[in-house]
Amino acid sequence: SRELFVLTYGALVAQLCKDYEKDEDVNTCLDRMGYAIGIRLIDDFLARSAVKRCRSYSETTDMIAQVAFKMYLGVTPRVSCSSAAGNEFSLILDKNPLVDFVEELPAERASLCYCNLLCGVIRGALEMVHLAAEVTFLQDRLKGDAVTEIGITFLRKAEDRKYKRN
Amino acid sequence: SRELFVLTYGALVAQLCKDYEKDEDVNTCLDRMGYAIGIRLIDDFLARSAVKRCRSYSETTDMIAQVAFKMYLGVTPRVSCSSAAGNEFSLILDKNPLVDFVEELPAERASLCYCNLLCGVIRGALEMVHLAAEVTFLQDRLKGDAVTEIGITFLRKAEDRKYKRN
Repeated sequence: SRELFVLTYGALVAQLCKDYEKDEDVNTCLDRMGYAIGIRLIDDFLARSAVKRCRSYSETTDMIAQVAFKMYLGVTPRVSCSSAAGNEFSLILDKNPLVDFVEELPAERASLCYCNLLCGVIRGALEMVHLAAEVTFLQDRLKGDAVTEIGITFLRKAEDRKYKRN
Repeated sequence: SRELFVLTYGALVAQLCKDYEKDEDVNTCLDRMGYAIGIRLIDDFLARSAVKRCRSYSETTDMIAQVAFKMYLGVTPRVSCSSAAGNEFSLILDKNPLVDFVEELPAERASLCYCNLLCGVIRGALEMVHLAAEVTFLQDRLKGDAVTEIGITFLRKAEDRKYKRN
């Protein structure tokens, strides 16, 4: 049951809002906390999911959506690839369980990325399997968007670039 | 899967330890946050567990242990009654999932009740079903005790006392 988790997460965000005046600082803090969680959670994920090594960014993103999100949040986002280069993906959530108890953001917290912890978790977990990525919210139902969308941009490795140049 | 919850809870405690120098203040804050969670979680609990009204403190405590703990933390504490008056109970956990990733408390945090949120959750939830109670940690494996023990003391209602006096 995830209700206790969702409410505890809410308490964490509320505490950070007390601690930091600027939404940007809360967002950064949530991302940093998430990163620290992600680099620990990946072991649990690999052990329990017993997934094979992914051979593409696309496979990796599908794994995050279909196995990791399902395992830890009980939902499966849709995946879309948003760049011809094949390194930018979106996880699209019609329903975001982490905001179950949140009606809307208060007016003075309009720039808050309430679920920014998730971005950090994904970034940290990916880094532990040697994938550098930028992870950010592109859309958020809490901000009036139709869906919640997390963007993952895999950063090309040095070797990739070298290979391409030759 | 509760690992994400357990790690997020750890981030919350760590943040409060940054915010408050004194362990007592962290403990109070966790209890207060838990209380706020408990008064919301009770609706979810009653809706999903579909339990009947309890007719005694003993039945209520069994319900917390066997249904609520199982539902939200995946473990079932043992229950013991520790007073002849029948209003003091203990929930005894051989294993506490909330501390899965905690090795030990740092020396400077020796008075921290790491899981104090749980006490607040129980207290808040009980209050919503019109039961006043004091809920505190009596033993804690994180502090070197053999088990983790949460004490629940149901506070006699005014009517009870009146009834007894007559």
